[in-house]
This record gives sequence, structure tokens and C-alpha cells, in this order.
Amino acid sequence: MRDIRSLRDYACWLHYDPLKKESWDKYQGQFETIQVDGDGPLVEAIEEELQRGIGGLLGTTPRLLPQGEGGPQGAAVQVIRALDAEWTLGEEGYQLEVQEEEGSLRVVITSPGERGCLYGTFAFLRLLQVGEIGGGLQVTDSPKNDLRMINHWDNLDGSVERGYAGRSIFFEDNQLVSDLDRIRDYARLLASVGINSVAVNNVNVHAAETQLIASRIDMAETLANIFRAYGIRLFLSVNYASTLEFGLDTADPLDERVRTWWKNQVKLVYQRIPDLGGFLVKADSENRPGPFTYGRTQADGANMLGEALESFGGVLIWRCFVYNCHQDWRDTKTDRARAAYDYFKPLDGQFRHNVILQIKNGPMDFQVREPVSPLFGAMEDTNQILELQITQEYTGQQRHLCYLVPQWKEILDFDTYAQGPGSTVATVVSSGMAAVVNVGNDPNWTGHTLAQANLYGYARLAWDPSLSAEQITREWITLTFGPCTEVLATLSEMLLTSWEIYENYTTPLGIGWMCNPNHHYGPNVDGYEYSKWGTYHKANNQAIGVDRTVGNGTGFTGQYHPENAALYESMETCPEELLLFFHRVPYTYQLKTGKTLLQHIYDSHFLGVEQVEGLLASWRSLEGRVNEATFGHVLARLEEQLDHAKEWRDVINTYFYRISGIGDIHNRTIYA
Amino acid sequence: MRDIRSLRDYACWLHYDPLKKESWDKYQGQFETIQVDGDGPLVEAIEEELQRGIGGLLGTTPRLLPQGEGGPQGAAVQVIRALDAEWTLGEEGYQLEVQEEEGSLRVVITSPGERGCLYGTFAFLRLLQVGEIGGGLQVTDSPKNDLRMINHWDNLDGSVERGYAGRSIFFEDNQLVSDLDRIRDYARLLASVGINSVAVNNVNVHAAETQLIASRIDMAETLANIFRAYGIRLFLSVNYASTLEFGLDTADPLDERVRTWWKNQVKLVYQRIPDLGGFLVKADSENRPGPFTYGRTQADGANMLGEALESFGGVLIWRCFVYNCHQDWRDTKTDRARAAYDYFKPLDGQFRHNVILQIKNGPMDFQVREPVSPLFGAMEDTNQILELQITQEYTGQQRHLCYLVPQWKEILDFDTYAQGPGSTVATVVSSGMAAVVNVGNDPNWTGHTLAQANLYGYARLAWDPSLSAEQITREWITLTFGPCTEVLATLSEMLLTSWEIYENYTTPLGIGWMCNPNHHYGPNVDGYEYSKWGTYHKANNQAIGVDRTVGNGTGFTGQYHPENAALYESMETCPEELLLFFHRVPYTYQLKTGKTLLQHIYDSHFLGVEQVEGLLASWRSLEGRVNEATFGHVLARLEEQLDHAKEWRDVINTYFYRISGIGDIHNRTIYA
Repeated sequence: MRDIRSLRDYACWLHYDPLKKESWDKYQGQFETIQVDGDGPLVEAIEEELQRGIGGLLGTTPRLLPQGEGGPQGAAVQVIRALDAEWTLGEEGYQLEVQEEEGSLRVVITSPGERGCLYGTFAFLRLLQVGEIGGGLQVTDSPKNDLRMINHWDNLDGSVERGYAGRSIFFEDNQLVSDLDRIRDYARLLASVGINSVAVNNVNVHAAETQLIASRIDMAETLANIFRAYGIRLFLSVNYASTLEFGLDTADPLDERVRTWWKNQVKLVYQRIPDLGGFLVKADSENRPGPFTYGRTQADGANMLGEALESFGGVLIWRCFVYNCHQDWRDTKTDRARAAYDYFKPLDGQFRHNVILQIKNGPMDFQVREPVSPLFGAMEDTNQILELQITQEYTGQQRHLCYLVPQWKEILDFDTYAQGPGSTVATVVSSGMAAVVNVGNDPNWTGHTLAQANLYGYARLAWDPSLSAEQITREWITLTFGPCTEVLATLSEMLLTSWEIYENYTTPLGIGWMCNPNHHYGPNVDGYEYSKWGTYHKANNQAIGVDRTVGNGTGFTGQYHPENAALYESMETCPEELLLFFHRVPYTYQLKTGKTLLQHIYDSHFLGVEQVEGLLASWRSLEGRVNEATFGHVLARLEEQLDHAKEWRDVINTYFYRISGIGDIHNRTIYA
Repeated sequence: MRDIRSLRDYACWLHYDPLKKESWDKYQGQFETIQVDGDGPLVEAIEEELQRGIGGLLGTTPRLLPQGEGGPQGAAVQVIRALDAEWTLGEEGYQLEVQEEEGSLRVVITSPGERGCLYGTFAFLRLLQVGEIGGGLQVTDSPKNDLRMINHWDNLDGSVERGYAGRSIFFEDNQLVSDLDRIRDYARLLASVGINSVAVNNVNVHAAETQLIASRIDMAETLANIFRAYGIRLFLSVNYASTLEFGLDTADPLDERVRTWWKNQVKLVYQRIPDLGGFLVKADSENRPGPFTYGRTQADGANMLGEALESFGGVLIWRCFVYNCHQDWRDTKTDRARAAYDYFKPLDGQFRHNVILQIKNGPMDFQVREPVSPLFGAMEDTNQILELQITQEYTGQQRHLCYLVPQWKEILDFDTYAQGPGSTVATVVSSGMAAVVNVGNDPNWTGHTLAQANLYGYARLAWDPSLSAEQITREWITLTFGPCTEVLATLSEMLLTSWEIYENYTTPLGIGWMCNPNHHYGPNVDGYEYSKWGTYHKANNQAIGVDRTVGNGTGFTGQYHPENAALYESMETCPEELLLFFHRVPYTYQLKTGKTLLQHIYDSHFLGVEQVEGLLASWRSLEGRVNEATFGHVLARLEEQLDHAKEWRDVINTYFYRISGIGDIHNRTIYA
């Protein structure tokens, strides 16, 4: 198992390769001593990181000075746990100062909190690599979100739901994996980009996982101990109907026996994990049990659990992914897009203060393009966090390059108008963000090495949603591949265009769902058309799409604040990338480009494949500039992507050609 | 495990319920003694059957007279193993004579073979139940096919590929099941209708099953012993590439090491099972290895195994289900329908005398309607057997009532013109028949109790393809439900119309494949349209179907003898139930009924659902006339069938309405 650590891609953005000549010369002889306030595992992690980072970057491992040593000035790098009355950055914020005196640089990292010290340390090492450390530099930073969370959909048997990077890094055969060091490496990786919470098991909680708060609590405790050393709190996904597995005949949230059982169980859990973050719950969703079974509201269910957690400082995170997953495709009155808002909006103000709703970014399910869920900004008196999906379920499953930071930026910057203009999703969800992670036990963690950028990017945005996609991309490339301008320019372009490229050759204009059922990989235009999942495009020989307007449709547009509702209501003002989400549109409808809808579909699919050819050419141009193993790995994935992009292009184009009878005006090949 | 035998449906057609009054009175006091020539397990099985049968039907278990006892005339029922020089019925034929003297009936069953005696015994009991036993009756009968075979697709882990009646009755967890008595009951059931060969394991032979001819030979031996007591020879499906699992680096059929390995292995197997029927092989098919891998022909592969089996009297059965299962849907030149003929026809005359080709009834794969495979009658110098599918993979999976005897009769009666008019499939495949069975460990063996009729019917047709569907149906109903005229009339009608009804609401006019991929249950018009399986309908807004003519299409029609080729070549003469198999047809094409193709699709789908309502009403009319448990069970399945028939109707109608834009002329509900 040790071998894996010698593979370059295992290190992700924490390579600490020796600095290139210019920086090397600039920093030689600096940072030879370090000193960190306090003690305990987290302080040791900081010390270890500084020694490892500086040692790797500059070739000399710095000496660790005990407290008080090093004279009045202290060590060259000093991490100070300061409790300043005027401090406004919170326990997780930090200040970083670089003083220069007679050519000697002195770095002082200050925070009142251990986590702040840790984040400041990683920031220092990051800045050192991008060459920004210099005399007079002063950085203050703090996370814009309190909760910066990772969700694992790992099962105790070692499988990962929607996992595309191997098996679970935590579990195998209903035990913890033997390589606990890898979990520690993972905690360090997450901490390096400011993640402070992780739910380790799948929100679909089966029989074995139900025991994580009972007979299998040992496993959770071990994981909590590992994560704690990097400032990360453990969360557990729990089975809402656990009481049914433990001898009660009900899971009614208002039943006293149920409430008592949970209170006792939570107490037992907190005896073992005193700093447990709390529970994550998927209830009444996709055949999972929930309060609806007992005629209770989602608030009844969430509050019952929230109450049990409250005295321990625990948080209850309740997912809003509730909809009818047994819809009859013949039923045109039910609109799945409406479901979350319809179920939760009326409950605004009814949730306890330690209950947080976790809302998926869109009203459907992590499609390549969806509007932002109207639930954001709809519940002023309810804690909310945004749920994103780093794992590429519908976006190429880490076989395709699809860098999602640009998508997430659009979501975060979307103006809900909840409190007038400027009420972006980023401000509305100030409780934080969660995301389903793309990590498994593949040597490179994420299956596709370039998919590491999605994990990095998500964490950075969770820290500060105002960071630009360009900056995040630049950071990740430099940390991962070193400071090469060609790599930076080429790979930035590849990453930043890849989401749009993927969209071009897959489902057009927000329609979504044209994929194979169950595994969700590859094109299948009618794949979900006659299913129970409520995800229909209703293409016929004239038109495609579901009318979701208030005027003639399902009324979904009315769930937005008036500014957005009006925008989406009309085909003329609706952003065209979302046209087929909101409207039923004839193939001959003229888009703003002057093209018909059908011609747009053909054009974007031909274009998408050409763009993947471009990605391949770009990557090939980097041969020799990135290490050979990574180069070959990414090349193979891109070649596979090209083949598969052609399959998407041809299936989609053929489908629309067959059903419409209208050909491509440029007479390119569409298979009859 | 004993409980299962007390369930009525477990007995299938061997209930031996007390005869109804008229017959009871007629036969009371008869058949009180029995005598059977010879000894050994098969003779004991005959004795046991006579005691059980007569005891059940007449209330008094007959006495078994030892050889020589009972005076010169012998017992009332005598089974004589006679070796008569003039006997022309073979070892499996029998003569049954009923003599009447002073009101005493004496039954003499004669055959030179043990199997013939067994079949005569079951025939006697059958005739007793249908009331045909009487003085002067003389019956001579013998099977029209030497090989009357059942194929199990059971895996050693207990799963059954395409099984819809529970788990394997043979295997569980890579062991034999503990209830070996149930296997004996099964052998008896098969023997009662003349089955003489059974392949117990799946033709897809995985790692565990590969060991059935090696380290797991014990399991095969035990099964052979059980089946032997009922005159049934065991066959094993073998892994063509077994040598690769046993240390050789090749499975090249012309490699001496491969040939030697098989000869030695076959010798070992025959030491344990001296009467093994032989091997069944699926090679070069759906990703199974085969001789093609080594640039050899199918004949090279089959002959190599045939040679190894020859000196032991073993037979090698080689399946002809060979086609390209990695076709690109964009490739319009390859036609899967052509494959079997293209691969095998040129090899006619090259197969050893103990090699038999097993040919599926149609060129595709057990669809509800296909033309007969052109390979029948195409290979005059090659042994052939017909492969049917009793398990209802594409015909409702034993959730739907679909009695297949009428389909099989059409196939057997199809005139290939191989030797001029009258060269029916039944005569061409005179080596015999095989069928994939519908049996699992459900208490009623077949999931749907009425699906027992398919097992019964197949076996009877394998015995004598000239039996009419009506006669077989009458027999099965009477044996299963007793001699009730209302049940006979109503259930006959239900069974005999059910295939056509199923066809009406599923895929129209021979097009096939409009089902969900993989599990093959339920409608999905485009389910196989963009897949690798070579099964395309290519529907567009004008027309549907693949042109398989010689004139403008793939040339498939040219694989038939001229009389049939001409018939299929033209849309005017092509039987309309197969129109969409052979031709690409506009929706507006006028059928012989005067309806357009599209209107025919709508009409047949509306009709099919009405007919299922009719099935339900018919069955309900039998309440009180069939036992309650069976009544309730079948009623529940029919109700499910009705729901699902509506789903088929609506999906198919909606698909064609959407793609064509043409509505139903009667304005019935088609969902837009």
C-alpha cells in the first residue's frame, strides 16, 4: 500500500516540488526556523506541514524552535495563537505578515484559533509557490462560509454511489480500510483548502450504515479522530427510520418513544465523539423513509433530530431533494422541478435554529445546465446551504474533462432578488456549502487527474465564493504542475472551456436527462422519457420541451422572485442556454443568433466534437512539460472523451433528424 | 422445505386427484395389482409411479406383484420389457393394450427399453385421467425426435440467467442445493412428458461452472444419478476456452495440446458419468471465447470437442447464436439477422457425425414474432436441432400470460422447401429439439402457474411435433385442473389466444426489440436503437423498419429457399405479421385490411389491452371452479398484466404519435 504514495498524482496540489531557479535563489537561506504556539495534534500537523513544505520547496528542512527560543524576534516562520480583543476574522481567519530586515524574511501567521493557524500555514505555503511572499506583504483572510462541507456517498461495503474513482477510501467489507494513513493524507488535503466538515457515509443509509451511530460507532470514532487532527469535524448520514431497526414500531417524529430513542442515541454518540458536527439526513426521497410516512411535515422530522442534537452543539442537515419518484409519465400536471419549493417554502420559519436545509443547486439533479433552484432566497427564516456535486455523475463521470468551477461561479453569482438586487446565492446561503465529492481509492484520488481541479475549486469557493474561476484555476495549475507559463496558459484554457464543450455535445439548452438510465453515462435521448422519474422532454416531430410558465405551463417560473419569474416566463427574455428548461419550443423557432433551434442543436454538437479535438491538440502540445505518467493518463482519457463525444453528437443529431425530418443546412453527416 | 410439496401447484400436471364420479365408478376395483419387468432405479420409478397414480386416482394403492406371481395372466397392470425382432418403435417407443375380460381390465405396456416402459406408464396414467382407458384400446407411440432436451441457464451461485421463477433448483452458493428430493421431483416431471436430456448449467459458463468437468465433477455426478433414475441423460455446458483455465496458453482447436487436454478431461468425466449425454457449447457468441479467436472455423471448434466425446458415445451440441455483438449502430451494412447463416452455411458437411448444431427458431433472439431462421433446411449434411425458449424472456417474463405452443406450432409447421414442398422445420430438425426452460425454485416451478403449460407443451411437441396445440392444451388443462368442461373451454380459449394478445399490445408486425435493455421487461421503443446489439428499427417521422430484401436491402431474404425468398422479398406478398421484419414501411402504407400501418399499430394496441381485460373476465368466471390459491395467484398476475399492457399500449402509441404527428382516426386517448 505504500507504493501508492510514490505516484506523483497522489500528492494532488501538495507536491512541494523544489522551486524553480528564480524563486529558489530568492528564498535560499530563508525560513530556516519555525515556531508554532500551543500543542496537540493540530499544532503538530502545522509543524509537520511547514517542515515538509519548506523542506520540499527550498531543499532544507527548517528547524523547529521550542516556545520561547529564538530570542525576542522568534523563529523565521512563526505561527502565533493570539487572542486579540479587536480580532474580527473569527476563529478560522488568519493574518499573515512578511517582514524583511537586512535581507531576512520573517513570516508571522496569527489567528485566535487552531484552524485559523492551520489555514494561514497552508496559505503561506501556497503563496510561496506562486512567488508572492516578500517583505511588507500583509494578508488577512477568513472563510466566508462557516460550514465548508464534503459529502461522501460511501457505503460500508466499500462501494461508492456515483463514484468514478475506485472504491471507498474509508470502508471495505463493512470495516474500516487497513490503510488509515491514507485517510490522514485525505484529511490533510481537505484542510489545505479549508474544508472543515465531512460526512463520511452515503445519504442512502442502508442496514450496515444505520449501525454507525450504534454498534459500529467505533468506526466513526476512529474517523473522527483522524479528521480532528486537521480541524475537520465528522458528520454522519443517518437513517431517518433508525428507530424501526432498533425495536420500535414507528419513526413518527412526534412519537415520544421515537424522540427519546434519538436523544439517548445522540448522547451515546457524543460520549464517543464530543465534537461530532451532527447528522445529515435524506428523508422522504427516492424511496427513503421520512416523516411523510407518518403524516408529518419535513420540519417535524428535522426538528425532532435537531432537538436531540442541540445540547451537544450538533447540527442537523436536512436535504431538500424531495419529490415524487413514482410519477406516471402520462401525468402532465406534476412537475418535479416544482417539488422542493412546494414542499419546503410553506415551512419557512418552522425549523429549529440548529437545523440547516441542504438545497441542490438546481431544481432537478445536477444536470450539466439547470436554472438555480427557486428555493434559494425563498426562505428568509431558515438556515440554508448549497449542495453541489463534484463527482461528475451527469458531466462525464471523470472519463470526460469537465471543470465545474465556471458552473459553480454562475450559480453562486445568480441574483435571487430575495432582498432586492445583489441577493446572490452566495449571500443567501451564508450558512455554507456542501458538495458530493469525487474521491475514491484510485491512486490519483479522482479517477481523472484533472478532476482534482474540481475538488480544489469547490473548496476554494466554499472558503470564498468571490474568488474568480481564473484565479482558482491559476492556483491549482501552478500548485499541481509547477510554474510553467505554457502549461498555465494551455491548461487554463482547457479547463475553463471544458464545461461549455461538454454541454455542446451533450444535452442542449437546459433540457437535461438525455442519458442512459441508472448509470447516467452516455446518450439516450428517450432514456428517461417514459419513466417514473418526472424528467421528460416530450419531443415530437414539431417541438421539444415542457412549458413551465405560469401562463400556459406548470407554473414553475412563478416560484422565483418577480424579476427572475418575468425573465423566465417569456421565450424572448429567457436566457437561451435555459430555453428548453422553461419552454416548449418548435424546432423552427429562431434563436437570437438567427439559427433555428434545430440548427443550433446540430451546430453545437458538431462544434462540441471539434472542440474536444482541440482539447486533445492542446494537451498534446504540453508533452514534455508535464510529467510523463500524468501526460499519458490524461491523453488516454481525452482520446476516450473524443470517441464518446462523437457518440453523443451522432445519437443526438440522428434522433432529431429522424423525428423532425429536417436536415443540417450544411449537409454534414447525420446518420439516418 | 417439506412444506412446499403440500402446495397444490407444486404437483403441476401430476396431481392424481381422485377421479370424478363417472370415471371413479367406471374404474373402481380395477388395476389392483401391478407387475413391472426388470429391476433397478428406473423400474422402481415405474412401480412407484403406478402405485402413486392409481392410488391417487382410484383411492386404492395397487399391490406390487413380484415377477412370475399373479398366475399366467399376470397383474392387472403389467409393464413388459420385450425384445421383439419386429419391433419398429425404438427403445423409447411403447405399446399399450387394454384387454377386458368379464368386466376386468388388464393393461399391458410393452417396450424393449426401460425408457419406453416409463413413457408407456405415464401415458397410461394420462389416458386414465382423460377417461380413454377401456377394453380394446391399443396405443402405439414413439417419440418423433431422439433428442428431447431441456436447457437450464442456471449458475452455480444459484442465480438463473433469464429466470423468472426464483433461484436455481440445482445450485446455491456454488454447492448443490440441500433439497435433492426436489431435483428428483423435477426429473419425474420431465420424464412424465418424455424429456430425455437436460443441460443443467448456463451456456454462459463462468469460472465456477468451468469446474463442473473438473474439481466440481461430484456435483455433476450427483445430478446425473438423480436424472438417470428417470431416463434422463445429463449434459453439461462447457467453457470452450477451458484450457486457458487449466494451464494452457491457448484454446486453438487445432493445437495438439488443446486436443489432448480435452480427450483426457472427457475420459475423466466419463469415468464418473458413463452415460453423460455430452456437452453443450456457446462459443464466439456475446463475448464468449471461441475458435474465431484463433482464426479457426466453428467446425474446427465443434469437431475438436466432438472427437473427444466420440469414443464414449457423447454428443457435442454447438449453438449457432453467433453474431457481432459490438456493432456500431451507424453501420448499416451489417445485418445481425444474416449472421448465423453467413457463418454456418458454408460449413455444411464439415461437422463430425456426433456434432449437432443447435439453432434458435428465429434469426434474432426469441422475439414475440420472428421469421423462422433460414438456417433450417440450409445444411443438408449437418445434424441440427431446434432451440426454443420456454422461459418468457421477451414474452412477459411469466408476469404476463403468454402460451407459446401456438408460436412453436407455427415454427415447426413452417415449410422450408429444403427438399421441395412439405420440408417443414419439424422434419428438417429430426435430430430433435432443445429449449431454455422456465423453471426455478418458486413453489409452482414456473412463477406463473399457467406457465407450466409452456413446459408441458414444449415437451409434448418435442415428443411429437404433429400434435395439435388444441390437443396439448386440452391435456394440460385436464391433468392440471381436472375434467371440468367450463374450465377446459374457458382456459383453452385464454391460453390459445394469449400469444396473439401479447403481440397485439407489444411490438408490432415482427419488428421486435422495443423493450428495456438488459432485463428486457417493459416497453422502450428506442431501447436498443443506438446500441451495439444490431437490433434497430430506424423509425423516423415517415417510416419504420430495416429493408432486408435482396433488391434494396441487406439481402437477408436471399438466405431462404426461393419459394420463401420470393414471398418475403415483396411487401405485397410478405406475410403482414412479419412485414416490419423484412421491410421499411411508411406509416401511411395501406395494409390488406385497408388500414394504414400506423392505424394498425394504434388499433392493435387498443385491442390488445381490451383482450387482456377479456382474459381477466374469463378467469374471474372460473372462480370456485379452480382451487382458491391458484385462482388468486393467477388473478393477481392477470391484474398486473393489464396494468402493464396499458403501459405498453401507451408508450408505443405515444411514441408513434409523437414521431409521425398523425393521430388515431377514432380519437382514442394517446398521450401527447
